[in-house]
Amino acid sequence: MQAYCDEHGLALRPHVKTHKLPRIARLQLDAGARGLTCQKLGEAELMADAGFDDILITFPLIGTGKAERLAELAARANVTVGADSADVAVSLSHALEQRGAEIGFLVDCDTGFARTGVQSPAEAASLADLVDRLPGLRLAGLMTHPATAASGPMLAEARAEIERRGLAVERISGGGTPEAYRVHESGVFTELRVGTYVYGDRRCLALGVTPLEDCALRVVATVVSRPTRDHAVLDAGSKTLTSDTLPALEAGTFGLVVEYPDAVIRRLSEEHADVDLSASDPFPEIGDVVTIVPNHACGTVNMHDEIALHRGGRDVEIVAIEGRGLVR
Amino acid sequence: MQAYCDEHGLALRPHVKTHKLPRIARLQLDAGARGLTCQKLGEAELMADAGFDDILITFPLIGTGKAERLAELAARANVTVGADSADVAVSLSHALEQRGAEIGFLVDCDTGFARTGVQSPAEAASLADLVDRLPGLRLAGLMTHPATAASGPMLAEARAEIERRGLAVERISGGGTPEAYRVHESGVFTELRVGTYVYGDRRCLALGVTPLEDCALRVVATVVSRPTRDHAVLDAGSKTLTSDTLPALEAGTFGLVVEYPDAVIRRLSEEHADVDLSASDPFPEIGDVVTIVPNHACGTVNMHDEIALHRGGRDVEIVAIEGRGLVR
Repeated sequence: MQAYCDEHGLALRPHVKTHKLPRIARLQLDAGARGLTCQKLGEAELMADAGFDDILITFPLIGTGKAERLAELAARANVTVGADSADVAVSLSHALEQRGAEIGFLVDCDTGFARTGVQSPAEAASLADLVDRLPGLRLAGLMTHPATAASGPMLAEARAEIERRGLAVERISGGGTPEAYRVHESGVFTELRVGTYVYGDRRCLALGVTPLEDCALRVVATVVSRPTRDHAVLDAGSKTLTSDTLPALEAGTFGLVVEYPDAVIRRLSEEHADVDLSASDPFPEIGDVVTIVPNHACGTVNMHDEIALHRGGRDVEIVAIEGRGLVR
Repeated sequence: MQAYCDEHGLALRPHVKTHKLPRIARLQLDAGARGLTCQKLGEAELMADAGFDDILITFPLIGTGKAERLAELAARANVTVGADSADVAVSLSHALEQRGAEIGFLVDCDTGFARTGVQSPAEAASLADLVDRLPGLRLAGLMTHPATAASGPMLAEARAEIERRGLAVERISGGGTPEAYRVHESGVFTELRVGTYVYGDRRCLALGVTPLEDCALRVVATVVSRPTRDHAVLDAGSKTLTSDTLPALEAGTFGLVVEYPDAVIRRLSEEHADVDLSASDPFPEIGDVVTIVPNHACGTVNMHDEIALHRGGRDVEIVAIEGRGLVR
């Protein structure tokens, strides 16, 4: 991913929501990343505590408590936030001004995903204008998620609209691993935010973004029951793998069993995976250990307090996932 | 639930997988429960550490490591396990015999759910016979999940088959909150395992099992974006609520927003809930705080390291969820 960004002159800003580990963030920075992306204020605080000093928080922070924590964070790191409303901008500005702190602000644009984001270039320019006038905030540019081919025109128009008002658009930030390697095509982005690429998962595999040998995240599970010839039960359910599905790909299945690729995880209970073996030959027996590439790396990591690091097939270390379970 | 069990002569054995908290288990015992149910050996160890001495583990435990831990656990608590295979029975027996320990064994029967469980009364009797002959194991009876009207005939036949071999079936244990209040109807069950009833959730609400005022588990979330008139975004995504859906009820929606019952949580990202407000009047604004009854209490609790206990609408205490994240 770093090589791709280097080739196309994009700043890589890895999303720590996937691994939630300062030590992997350090590897990403060492490989050439510009800074980090966090989805929660708590994640950003954790990364600042670990010594990282260039952090983007791509989630609208609202409320006095969060604004005050953000101001404290800004005193020890270069912080940028993304948001889509005057409410958020005004509330953050108030807390930051009181503490003499300043942060960057990216105007979040909805370029088709219909989650957060202003709805038009005019709205983007209007919010940019407000941000430019508010103390404690520095207009830093635009952001969207995910970055797709359809994102280009709206972002280009928003940039032009903002520049017409005499304001600078330093950064245009786009996110999402599946579409990452086409982000240069639209010509608008200066920065790429990606999380999942660091581990890979079944979605990346199915989309052809990550080959199996690069899917580093595996869940180790044991066959605990073989009620019939065509049915195995693993000790890895929704509390281990999450209920995250791959709606566009293979609906209702919950991970790839690496050693038995024709086995299908059809249903999860909290601690059980029901595996359909009707197309599988050979098939696993009670006590056999299998490894699963989960559908969604970010969700799966978030279920676990610890992760085992491997190198060359051998355990290297078991590490606490420090950023897991941060609720604020 | 205790009143229902008392009325019908059923032993109540609450499932701790829902709350994972010794303090709530204590309330359940104090109210008259016979013992506890755990889904993981780690949960059982936690409960034994907290002083509980009658524990059923309803998950097939396999492997030397687990068998040895089970033997240690059996030295300090009255332990029963449920399983469906000779492999599990033999492996546990070996470790238990070596340490001079004994546990009860329930033969797990598949009465229609097609998860774990032997497939016929003859298989049940055959496994019961083996268990009776294995050192370290004491045949304790039968179990199934969930307990439905269809469970009765198979369990009655299995019991008769086992008794014909001169063996006793002390307990027949059935589980599942949604069907709990009809468990007496089949006449076969002596014990009820239920977890979700302690908190209630949107599934229980939708099935008419738990009224809204008894749904004790709420997720508090804040409106962080209002991109359009018909769309609000909450700071509670799949890492807060889980991706667990209610397939039979309202597919693709992720919880009830209590204050805005006509709002529909249509999609979750990891930290975002997209709420469709098109049918909602009034509707929430940025900064408003709402409470959500999640689809699935057990999964939602498992996302969080802490839970806030309330009484009369006031915070009483924030408690660590001690049993969360136990992987073994």
